[in-house]
Amino acid sequence: MKVLVANLGSTSFKYRLYDMDGERQLARGGIERIGSLESLCKVEIGDTKQEKVLSVPDHAEAVRQCLAQLTDPEKGCLADANEVSAIGFKAVHGGKYSGVQRVNRELLDEMERMNHIAPAHNPPYIAAMRQLNENLPDIPLIAAFETGFHQTIPERRTVFAVPYEWAEKALVRRWGFHGASHRYIAVRTAEILGRDDLRIISLHLGGSSSACAIRNGQSVGNSFSMGAQSGLPHNNRVGDFDPYALPFVMDYTGKSLEEVLAAMACEGGLLGISGISEDIRDISEAAEQGNHRAQLALDAFATAVRNYVGAYLVEMGGADVIVFTGGIGENRDEFRQAVCRDLEELGIELDPTANKNAKGEAKISSDSSRTQIWVVPTNEELIVARQTKQLLEG
Amino acid sequence: MKVLVANLGSTSFKYRLYDMDGERQLARGGIERIGSLESLCKVEIGDTKQEKVLSVPDHAEAVRQCLAQLTDPEKGCLADANEVSAIGFKAVHGGKYSGVQRVNRELLDEMERMNHIAPAHNPPYIAAMRQLNENLPDIPLIAAFETGFHQTIPERRTVFAVPYEWAEKALVRRWGFHGASHRYIAVRTAEILGRDDLRIISLHLGGSSSACAIRNGQSVGNSFSMGAQSGLPHNNRVGDFDPYALPFVMDYTGKSLEEVLAAMACEGGLLGISGISEDIRDISEAAEQGNHRAQLALDAFATAVRNYVGAYLVEMGGADVIVFTGGIGENRDEFRQAVCRDLEELGIELDPTANKNAKGEAKISSDSSRTQIWVVPTNEELIVARQTKQLLEG
Repeated sequence: MKVLVANLGSTSFKYRLYDMDGERQLARGGIERIGSLESLCKVEIGDTKQEKVLSVPDHAEAVRQCLAQLTDPEKGCLADANEVSAIGFKAVHGGKYSGVQRVNRELLDEMERMNHIAPAHNPPYIAAMRQLNENLPDIPLIAAFETGFHQTIPERRTVFAVPYEWAEKALVRRWGFHGASHRYIAVRTAEILGRDDLRIISLHLGGSSSACAIRNGQSVGNSFSMGAQSGLPHNNRVGDFDPYALPFVMDYTGKSLEEVLAAMACEGGLLGISGISEDIRDISEAAEQGNHRAQLALDAFATAVRNYVGAYLVEMGGADVIVFTGGIGENRDEFRQAVCRDLEELGIELDPTANKNAKGEAKISSDSSRTQIWVVPTNEELIVARQTKQLLEG
Repeated sequence: MKVLVANLGSTSFKYRLYDMDGERQLARGGIERIGSLESLCKVEIGDTKQEKVLSVPDHAEAVRQCLAQLTDPEKGCLADANEVSAIGFKAVHGGKYSGVQRVNRELLDEMERMNHIAPAHNPPYIAAMRQLNENLPDIPLIAAFETGFHQTIPERRTVFAVPYEWAEKALVRRWGFHGASHRYIAVRTAEILGRDDLRIISLHLGGSSSACAIRNGQSVGNSFSMGAQSGLPHNNRVGDFDPYALPFVMDYTGKSLEEVLAAMACEGGLLGISGISEDIRDISEAAEQGNHRAQLALDAFATAVRNYVGAYLVEMGGADVIVFTGGIGENRDEFRQAVCRDLEELGIELDPTANKNAKGEAKISSDSSRTQIWVVPTNEELIVARQTKQLLEG
């Protein structure tokens, strides 16, 4: 069975093609600047990379273009487009629908209802899925929601201290996201350590960041609250914020509630504090040159991560493994060091050399550390491909 | 020097009178139902309690009435009202003014500007202080702000991940409250243990609740964010909440932003989740009888407290003492047990018998616990009296 896994932005379509027999990745590619006259289409099949520029008006055409490249008689890897059994989407928020779902009108309507809390993520998925359903009706579309892995979080962690009917009737609760990534970390860490009965603190740190407490393979806590802007500070999104500060911000900026929420979702995060960039590489460079706000952004980010490390240590009565993943978690050894600083008394001890030299999967704790610390590159697409296959097979 | 310490509600005035030579409490009392025709005035001087009912139209008259009772030739403890050197107020939020301040027009204007974020607390203080300044101009009024103790929290903990100018220009940051209580715990715990160099996690749990990380006597973290509704869930106030959920709540309830924030500040907290009561005694009773939402309220509250215990363990690289205080912290042994559950691996171990039998100041950890656990009744009024004296003495 061959599955195409799609990751969508408002003007982009990235994909990987898997042969699920052996879970081999056959191809990967992406189309950028969808809607412009000069869209960039890339594909990588085996060792061969191709690139071309052409006009791709919408996401349906982007998928057609991708299938054309994959079935190219000379350079492609598929004999026919109908070899693709389904397209799996790493979708964000499906409201009352979570887990893995076939995409239909009802699901799309419910996703649309959740646009408020995933304004950067849900709309492009909905638009693209609608187009694909209309234009390529023969390919089943499967949505694997980011909230799915977090269905096992106990209610005492998901409930807000608000009138209870708001949760029952209006889904006002903590959901948790980054489910595909944390699920991959849960499965892969158990494989690496050869044990299922693990207490894992999974730290997915990147453009978007979250912490997850995993006990015996199940999520028991995630730093995302209701919306995809919450929890840890993100590249340009706010993270946890006090709603009672909103009237102050509205007074000060003269903006409406909607405008303030929008500003916090694109002018906040590391960008907001540092005032320099949303990219931790730029911020780290400025901090090294003595920029106060750049250093503050890094310190505030590390502090926020440490808050959740502490909360999850207590939730699980200790941890067997802390795992770093995501662009920052996998690549920024000095940030991993900042997160793990001064935790020896709690049984958490980094090996500075192993941390500095880590490449790919690597243990970076000292031998005397009670809690192991690892870097494990994530693979969200593989999880979506697996879930898509499972749903198709019933 | 004699200092009157005042604790105000919108229709109440509670006070204690201290002789600061020896820090003796001379009297305590209160006036309820201010503004009604039948206000209840109570006073307790030594072993003598008095009560009377009369019409007290406003807070200035309440103070006059209190001074009349204290100077009563037969039952009073003062020869003359001018023996009172000042009235000290446990005030909440003074915006750009923190610490201990003389009450004047400028301060009151700034307090008024902060009404948004302390809607239940600031307005009655402002109204009463204005009246007292006008009607009893000879008694100096001193405000000891709840935010004062938290001025030592590092900026990486107070900054929100929003455009930085919002903090600089509009004071949009985490402030921290319950300063008088946590300061008392810092001082008193150091006295009890005979050491200043302590890492303390102070848990003030009551109608209003907060956690505080204290290192070497200084606050380095507090669970309150910008507003007095934030952090831990309170009796009827929400605690931490995701601002991106607000549009959902507004849609569902048909309420304005202001109305939703007001609802969360009086229909939330333990009351909101349990749907039964804002009083933990009622909730615990219902939970024992199998009420799911009552148990959920207790579990969510304990989980929230444990999140901060964990965050502060990591902040300080461990803790020397965890202290329970406040109405719930001092009196609910089963709740203390829920907070400390399963933390042996982290060096935190309750002694169940000591916990059950604790009265007044009591150590409740086992001898093998690396972190000591104590119950220490708080005394916020004494801190305000001390701060008032210090300010008067320059």
